[in-house]
Amino acid sequence: MTIRTPFTTLFNIEHPIVSAPMGGVAGGALAAAVSNSGALGLVGGGYGDLDWLRRELTIVREATRKPWGVGVITWHANEAAVDLALSFEPPVFFLSFGDPRPYARRIKAKGVKLVCQVQDLASARLALEAGADALVAHGAEGGGHGATRGAMPLVPAVVDLAGKTPVLAAGGIADGRGLAAALMLGAAGALIGTRFYATIEAIGEAQAKRALVEASGDDTLRTRVFDMARNYDWPMQYTGRAINNEFSERWHGRENALQAQLPAEQARYQAAATVGNYDVKMVWASEAIDLICEVEPAANIVARVAAEAEALLKRAASVCAS
Amino acid sequence: MTIRTPFTTLFNIEHPIVSAPMGGVAGGALAAAVSNSGALGLVGGGYGDLDWLRRELTIVREATRKPWGVGVITWHANEAAVDLALSFEPPVFFLSFGDPRPYARRIKAKGVKLVCQVQDLASARLALEAGADALVAHGAEGGGHGATRGAMPLVPAVVDLAGKTPVLAAGGIADGRGLAAALMLGAAGALIGTRFYATIEAIGEAQAKRALVEASGDDTLRTRVFDMARNYDWPMQYTGRAINNEFSERWHGRENALQAQLPAEQARYQAAATVGNYDVKMVWASEAIDLICEVEPAANIVARVAAEAEALLKRAASVCAS
Repeated sequence: MTIRTPFTTLFNIEHPIVSAPMGGVAGGALAAAVSNSGALGLVGGGYGDLDWLRRELTIVREATRKPWGVGVITWHANEAAVDLALSFEPPVFFLSFGDPRPYARRIKAKGVKLVCQVQDLASARLALEAGADALVAHGAEGGGHGATRGAMPLVPAVVDLAGKTPVLAAGGIADGRGLAAALMLGAAGALIGTRFYATIEAIGEAQAKRALVEASGDDTLRTRVFDMARNYDWPMQYTGRAINNEFSERWHGRENALQAQLPAEQARYQAAATVGNYDVKMVWASEAIDLICEVEPAANIVARVAAEAEALLKRAASVCAS
Repeated sequence: MTIRTPFTTLFNIEHPIVSAPMGGVAGGALAAAVSNSGALGLVGGGYGDLDWLRRELTIVREATRKPWGVGVITWHANEAAVDLALSFEPPVFFLSFGDPRPYARRIKAKGVKLVCQVQDLASARLALEAGADALVAHGAEGGGHGATRGAMPLVPAVVDLAGKTPVLAAGGIADGRGLAAALMLGAAGALIGTRFYATIEAIGEAQAKRALVEASGDDTLRTRVFDMARNYDWPMQYTGRAINNEFSERWHGRENALQAQLPAEQARYQAAATVGNYDVKMVWASEAIDLICEVEPAANIVARVAAEAEALLKRAASVCAS
């Protein structure tokens, strides 16, 4: 048994599940493991380190014969990164955070399917104008960068706007309950991030993955302070959801004070990141970490999420009583 | 056909839908209309105006023989308001925003069912300790006061915590898709606010209700500036989601500047509120206003949301293909 949706049909995959292209976390090994499990694995091109991208795309292309994809941060992207990624002939290209139109033609001209992640109705309209083959309605509950709207109301509103273009739900989904809920909202599947960070295959330190298992969604916050510390000039509408730590406890809400001593704090952050001091270094995390109980192989997650969702959908009718 | 859940059974109602006790909006007429439609209608006791409460509770008690309820703002409540409400023998008492334990014993001693709205796992634990008969996992997408966590990940996490205690989902739900999604997340129903504000029976000016129809979820924001202008000293963890207007455009993010000239701005707000000037006066609104297309009788909404959800649940199994 599998769940068939317009997304699984169009993208030729078995399960309506996509792993998010988490920068620095979703390398070729994770993407290939997800794709080999029947879902769609994405490599996270992040800020466009070409050597990193070349290495990880080489890995994924060699490790799977199933559909896979690559994502970049749209506002930070450049033609070199996009062209390098396209040279690997990815079946799917994923653009998030910014106007996709400057790159859409180039991507679609190669016959590559374009998926655009959107955070509100305004960005959904841009993505449809860009000719996206599918949209991801991305709620603020998610880990890492995002905006303010929540998945529960955003998904059906984007579905209504998108017409026949399939929409995936993202933000706060980590198990089969979330996937089944996404389908009820009208989505054709779910994009899942943080749950795939807590896998064997994800790139990342054991301490960070363990934090995803141990912390609660109550402990996460959306903040700008880690981007300031890392010297990334994200557009103001995007913040990053991370597990609250000593650094964010100290500076979140005091961004002007942080700005006033930024060089010193950037140096302190860099030093902490180098030695894996997570009192200062951030761990991006979804509110859905409440639902994460162990670090495990990505294939287990794909199989379990799909099976849980299928079981829920199959017995959904039984709550309707005459 | 109706949807049966542990909540409908325990509260002896037909549909797993509850109308939120919106202060100043959910009076006796709305609560009675919702209850008479087979859902559970709640009167919003708000800040505890005893004359208002006595009038509206008199209305609801006379207008329905079905179960109904009354809610108060926990941190602002006092024994006079709680005892007045209890004197009307409400089948259900609803506490939100604050520690429910000081009032729980008094309420439950009367044989009244206690529902506690929670915004995170920490407040869910307090509600369980208070002996709540049901919890509402309340996402930040919702209109009016709320906190930061999103419904999509909060609902299943609260369900896991609550064990056999039924959990309703709230925040960003305005149609049958949202109710069906809530049930997939493990909830036993949905609490719906703003959708019931845009009804004939809700208390409120026509211009405010029209704004709910015309604005988009993209236009809403969580802010503290309207509480400052109205001189309500809400605990810092709670903000109110409203439609952005000239007042919030001017002051949101500049709360210190607003504080510095608060008496003048409070007077300006009061004057604008008196004449219904919505460039200044706020309209609380959920992100789900994208899904609201007209002001209509509450009974229509109950019937439609229930029917939509039933239809989705009944065909849910059909997306599972062998």
